[in-house]
Amino acid sequence: MREFFQVVTREQASSHASSFQRVGTEKVPLGDALGRVLAADLVSDIDLPGFRRSTMDGFTIQAASSFGSSDSSPALVEVRGTIEMGAEARMSIERGQAARILTGGMLPPGADSVVMIEHAEALDDSTIEVTRSVFPGQNVIEADEDIARGETLIVGGSRLRPQDLGLLAALGCEQVEVFQKPVVAILSTGDEIVAVGCKPSCGQIRDVNSLTLSAMVTEAGGRTVMLGIVGDDLNKMTQVTTKALAESDVIMVSGGSSVGSRDLTLDLIEALPDSRLLFHGVAIRSGKPTILAAVGVSAFWGLPGHVASAMVVFRVLVRPFLEHIGGAHTPGGELRVPARLTRNIASAPGRQDYIRVKLEEGDTEMLAVPVPGKSGLIRTMVTADGVIEIDINTEGLDAGSLVWVRLW
Amino acid sequence: MREFFQVVTREQASSHASSFQRVGTEKVPLGDALGRVLAADLVSDIDLPGFRRSTMDGFTIQAASSFGSSDSSPALVEVRGTIEMGAEARMSIERGQAARILTGGMLPPGADSVVMIEHAEALDDSTIEVTRSVFPGQNVIEADEDIARGETLIVGGSRLRPQDLGLLAALGCEQVEVFQKPVVAILSTGDEIVAVGCKPSCGQIRDVNSLTLSAMVTEAGGRTVMLGIVGDDLNKMTQVTTKALAESDVIMVSGGSSVGSRDLTLDLIEALPDSRLLFHGVAIRSGKPTILAAVGVSAFWGLPGHVASAMVVFRVLVRPFLEHIGGAHTPGGELRVPARLTRNIASAPGRQDYIRVKLEEGDTEMLAVPVPGKSGLIRTMVTADGVIEIDINTEGLDAGSLVWVRLW
Repeated sequence: MREFFQVVTREQASSHASSFQRVGTEKVPLGDALGRVLAADLVSDIDLPGFRRSTMDGFTIQAASSFGSSDSSPALVEVRGTIEMGAEARMSIERGQAARILTGGMLPPGADSVVMIEHAEALDDSTIEVTRSVFPGQNVIEADEDIARGETLIVGGSRLRPQDLGLLAALGCEQVEVFQKPVVAILSTGDEIVAVGCKPSCGQIRDVNSLTLSAMVTEAGGRTVMLGIVGDDLNKMTQVTTKALAESDVIMVSGGSSVGSRDLTLDLIEALPDSRLLFHGVAIRSGKPTILAAVGVSAFWGLPGHVASAMVVFRVLVRPFLEHIGGAHTPGGELRVPARLTRNIASAPGRQDYIRVKLEEGDTEMLAVPVPGKSGLIRTMVTADGVIEIDINTEGLDAGSLVWVRLW
Repeated sequence: MREFFQVVTREQASSHASSFQRVGTEKVPLGDALGRVLAADLVSDIDLPGFRRSTMDGFTIQAASSFGSSDSSPALVEVRGTIEMGAEARMSIERGQAARILTGGMLPPGADSVVMIEHAEALDDSTIEVTRSVFPGQNVIEADEDIARGETLIVGGSRLRPQDLGLLAALGCEQVEVFQKPVVAILSTGDEIVAVGCKPSCGQIRDVNSLTLSAMVTEAGGRTVMLGIVGDDLNKMTQVTTKALAESDVIMVSGGSSVGSRDLTLDLIEALPDSRLLFHGVAIRSGKPTILAAVGVSAFWGLPGHVASAMVVFRVLVRPFLEHIGGAHTPGGELRVPARLTRNIASAPGRQDYIRVKLEEGDTEMLAVPVPGKSGLIRTMVTADGVIEIDINTEGLDAGSLVWVRLW
């Protein structure tokens, strides 16, 4: 049995990410860009809407034509015609004149405001009474009011949301430059692990980790290559991993919570070309037997075999790592939800504890209900909505404490 | 100009969902099931782990063999051999005997606990000293401790998360029955709208809504069919929509914030076979000009033309609707985040206001910062993280109020 080679704190473990290079970029059609990470700042090269636009159905006028008007003292205005939607408005509007306009229509030269249809009464085909005073700019979006040329609209490294795609569409981008998805090759190890499609014999257990971790990689913005299950056989592991290195940014090996398997993972790293162990053991619970190594320009993560521990390590360390190499500008800067802890939790100082909690909606705040159970259990992770962190110097938390929940 | 036909409250608008039938179900491979909605309760047909399993590396014994032992008074125990990983443990352990075991290994007959390797000292090849007392069941997961046969593990209608896929894998499900993705056909209308790839002439604007709404449908678990842009032409709209009805659960038309376009949408609904208008106008802001109709068994949603309004309506009404027909057990039951409002907001009674807010992390709570701006602006939706609701009977909210933020 080898001792833990070099146990680091969570912060130390996280700091290694910066020594790995980011993936390259690629152009994708806008329709495929949801959730992708924008490669560079988006700077507008146009004004939007690009023309003065009505926000109401009604009559466009010079505001001065309406000043002082009311129901009892309406202003008489001549209607010169109708603004066509989607066409340039060419007729010129003088004081005392108006044109019919619809929401989204372009203001004609001379006009500076729009009277809502409810505040205009037709006297005949070419005359209306305006019964309300409008100010210049009322019911109008200015040509550069939404977006001005030269403005930075989305910061590079942002993950694109629906509205960001809408904005890119407004700017006429049919394609967008994004970071490639980091490629993560996933290997499950252990003589006791059998494929999902197999019936386990006594003493065996199905491969839970591959699918769980693969889906977590997907949610973190990565792409997975499934390497399957390899028993505790160094030659086979070396062979499979070496082959995967050619096409992967990250090799993720799970299994090996036992000392024997852990030793095998260390042997595997040693056997790989140009490899360098960065840490072996992290002072967190659950998740101490975590390993990070550099293999050439790729990363090698060794995760605990217990799936619930593997999930915690993924959430706290691997996900921010993938976000970093995937170009995200705030890796690990995900939304955390404040909540009130419902019961006391004990914790040993000297390590960072991650406690699985279920979120419930209270009257005025969210409640964080700890999910009990050994880390070897699958159930705990299915019940939980996320994890809370107990600081390395804290001996526990009292019921009623405010905690920040990282959602799974 | 037609008056709003029948203005309903948000609650009334939401209640129509239940009159639409759910989509069918299909079997998908587990690797493709992330985010899909489980069709029926998942009930376990096995115990898990299925055998008594060690959670530590060490020696498995009868706990009684260790009672009273300590560093100064260790218990002498005979080592009968090693438990192979992934194999059935056949050797029988009597009082005073032990077998070497690794994490995940199967307890042999007679054994009931595991002594950690740190608490056992080898005297020779077949004898150890146990220096700590263990209790029956210590460092052991019982055969049905994680999951017991017959237990309901995931409720039908749940959206599958990574850990749910892990659980399904543990149960040996290579495929899983899920609801089909609701198919939503998206049509943008308006003479002033041009395709993203076009350079807009003066008075024209690019199609922002199709892409934004399509991505929101994707996030809501649906699949989209893009019908493109049709000008304000009833015949063309009828033709395109009728064709799409054959393959869609929902037709979603956006555009038409102007009275003329709204009238055209109503004409379109009338022109469609077996159509029935359910409401025309919802007492919410932004989003009053929203329309829902039944067309045969399909739904027809008419959304406001302003994209920021369309997003609010989608988030508040259409998304829960899609979740309902898509089989989700709690449509609209998404996570809301409590936050402290940073400034006063005025609101007119008689309608439900949705205010776009940006979330910031405060010291002990989240802060909701209102995002100002007319609803016609794209920028407001890009800046905002979500919306808060101001009740129909409230005249506004004071700075410092607790609000619940629905994330986009």
